[in-house]
Amino acid sequence: MATIDDFYSIIPAGGAGSRLWPLSRADAPKFLHDLTGSGKTLLRATFDRLSPLTGAGRTMVVTGRAHRAAVEAQIPELEDANIVLEADPRDSTVAIALAAAVLRRREPDVIVGSFAADHVIHDERAFRRAVTEAVTAARAGYIAAIGITPTEPAIGFGYIRAGEPAGVEGAPNAALVQQFVEKPSAQVARRYVEEGDYLWNAGMFIARADVLLEELAKEEPALSAQIEELAAVWDEPGRRGPAVDRLWPQLKKIAIDYSVAEPAAARGRMVVVPGDFDWDDVGDFSAVAKLHNNGRRGRLAILGSQGTVIADSASGIVVSQSNRIISVVGIHDVVVVDTPDALLVTTTDNAQRVKQVVDAVRRSGNADAL
Amino acid sequence: MATIDDFYSIIPAGGAGSRLWPLSRADAPKFLHDLTGSGKTLLRATFDRLSPLTGAGRTMVVTGRAHRAAVEAQIPELEDANIVLEADPRDSTVAIALAAAVLRRREPDVIVGSFAADHVIHDERAFRRAVTEAVTAARAGYIAAIGITPTEPAIGFGYIRAGEPAGVEGAPNAALVQQFVEKPSAQVARRYVEEGDYLWNAGMFIARADVLLEELAKEEPALSAQIEELAAVWDEPGRRGPAVDRLWPQLKKIAIDYSVAEPAAARGRMVVVPGDFDWDDVGDFSAVAKLHNNGRRGRLAILGSQGTVIADSASGIVVSQSNRIISVVGIHDVVVVDTPDALLVTTTDNAQRVKQVVDAVRRSGNADAL
Repeated sequence: MATIDDFYSIIPAGGAGSRLWPLSRADAPKFLHDLTGSGKTLLRATFDRLSPLTGAGRTMVVTGRAHRAAVEAQIPELEDANIVLEADPRDSTVAIALAAAVLRRREPDVIVGSFAADHVIHDERAFRRAVTEAVTAARAGYIAAIGITPTEPAIGFGYIRAGEPAGVEGAPNAALVQQFVEKPSAQVARRYVEEGDYLWNAGMFIARADVLLEELAKEEPALSAQIEELAAVWDEPGRRGPAVDRLWPQLKKIAIDYSVAEPAAARGRMVVVPGDFDWDDVGDFSAVAKLHNNGRRGRLAILGSQGTVIADSASGIVVSQSNRIISVVGIHDVVVVDTPDALLVTTTDNAQRVKQVVDAVRRSGNADAL
Repeated sequence: MATIDDFYSIIPAGGAGSRLWPLSRADAPKFLHDLTGSGKTLLRATFDRLSPLTGAGRTMVVTGRAHRAAVEAQIPELEDANIVLEADPRDSTVAIALAAAVLRRREPDVIVGSFAADHVIHDERAFRRAVTEAVTAARAGYIAAIGITPTEPAIGFGYIRAGEPAGVEGAPNAALVQQFVEKPSAQVARRYVEEGDYLWNAGMFIARADVLLEELAKEEPALSAQIEELAAVWDEPGRRGPAVDRLWPQLKKIAIDYSVAEPAAARGRMVVVPGDFDWDDVGDFSAVAKLHNNGRRGRLAILGSQGTVIADSASGIVVSQSNRIISVVGIHDVVVVDTPDALLVTTTDNAQRVKQVVDAVRRSGNADAL
């Protein structure tokens, strides 16, 4: 499969992944960890997954100033011009639209695709096939989402309802988006999977940069103007700083789903391309355990090998980040995350509750461990 | 209650307490820990429980050479002459009989009582009442055990079956021991408790030193002779060392139950005095949790306060010996023992299996963590 000449990928690398605490931290967020045991961080794996599509040097990473060094260490080949540093996190619209606006000034006809830095995909061929089709639809003027064919009635993801075929030449599977729906109840999720025209919203959006920015301008004109103002001076180091200082604090925090995708769908500008590949946002330790145990219960996965793990009648996952001996006896579906300054003990069934623990840690005056 | 002039207590302070790993270690065994939250180690609490009975300066501690400094730190008032240091552990007969033989050379008519360094008793008045009665029976020539009135059909203890009253003046509750029985099955334990004449064997033996040694000589003449040979030179520093070097490696490892108590019972020389007090040998983390939660389930006890413990829907016990944040979410009857170099995660139901973990740690080449 050839690279796509006019395509540029954007990787927003933010988000603490608080349900993965104490592995994921403010200073070492989820995308900087190897959660799959592949030997690569999720960020590096995302970068490597995209390079065959875009060609070398055509990926832009948007991240916080605090993560600059870590990102550069992960992707030494990343040029300075391809790192957008956020003064502070402003949600996905700013991250993606600012990158798109900067890229459009460099390349007016560029097609951009945004891909989270911390998702897991193994079937890269099928991934590339879907992206290539989405780029074709984007070239025709649509904003294309990639929707994952559900393998189970998951309640942790939003869904995209596919409507009529869009009739784009070279993108036979692209369908007009009928509706975006929020995370459903278990009952509703079962219905979605049965009906067959609902796909998981994996947050992958591919569009011509000008189309994306035009849609944003319709829905959020003030934010759009601020982003364009920043983009206009972004490649002039002397003018960028003052503009960031002045404009950044005013930037609205809004997810791109609300500022662009849903309004564009309502205007008939949005298509979805079904992605027939495995995909996981690895949102909690239950997902991490599942990835490592290949979905089979009854096994004990060990992530990290700093210490010695001794298990007796135990299953689930042990994350070993200290050099201690960890012994787990007689607990099934356990989650043990052992780091130098914090320990989490729970079960996969309670993995979603870890977020509340993070809040409690903050309230306990131990925010430095977050 | 007055002190008993001719009484001397012996505290064998040994035993790694491997079911309490990684809290209890070779270099910090169970008796050096405060398992009750009283602020005192079990050894210190045992010493303090006995002092009102014996009077000051009349307690002898038998321990390993490695623990000398720790024992002295716990009991600064302990005179050198009252520490018997074992070259290596030789089981309870050597520990108790050697102390008794040394004391008899100093005080021919002394009555000795042996009390484990790592048991927990709260009702000290009832304890002193039972010991006082046992001393009276001992003065009459019997070896007296204190048997604990069972509160439940425990399967973790041996039992003593009480027979006919011994008819000792001043010791109205002392009964001839009909039988010692090993740890029973649950069914047998229930029968014992129903029948009412079975008491828990708490390993507390009170006897005239000469009677104890005489009974030992009948059953284990070789061991008895070696112990007497050691005792003869014990208080002569120049001669003690060579005797220990020569004799210690030959000393038979045998529990005093087999070398003295059971044979003496068969000869009608053994009585049991019922002890109507709470008693626990705190054999595993389930017992530690029970002690702290006052037997109530559904609570989470926290032992040690080095770190911050954050719990959500958790019960059981957390032992915090590192300065880390420990978060426990959604696990009931959990046992988390967090130490600087080793972590244990299990449940109270599996507490007995910790012993096997210790074996596995040894096999894994991490014996320095034991």
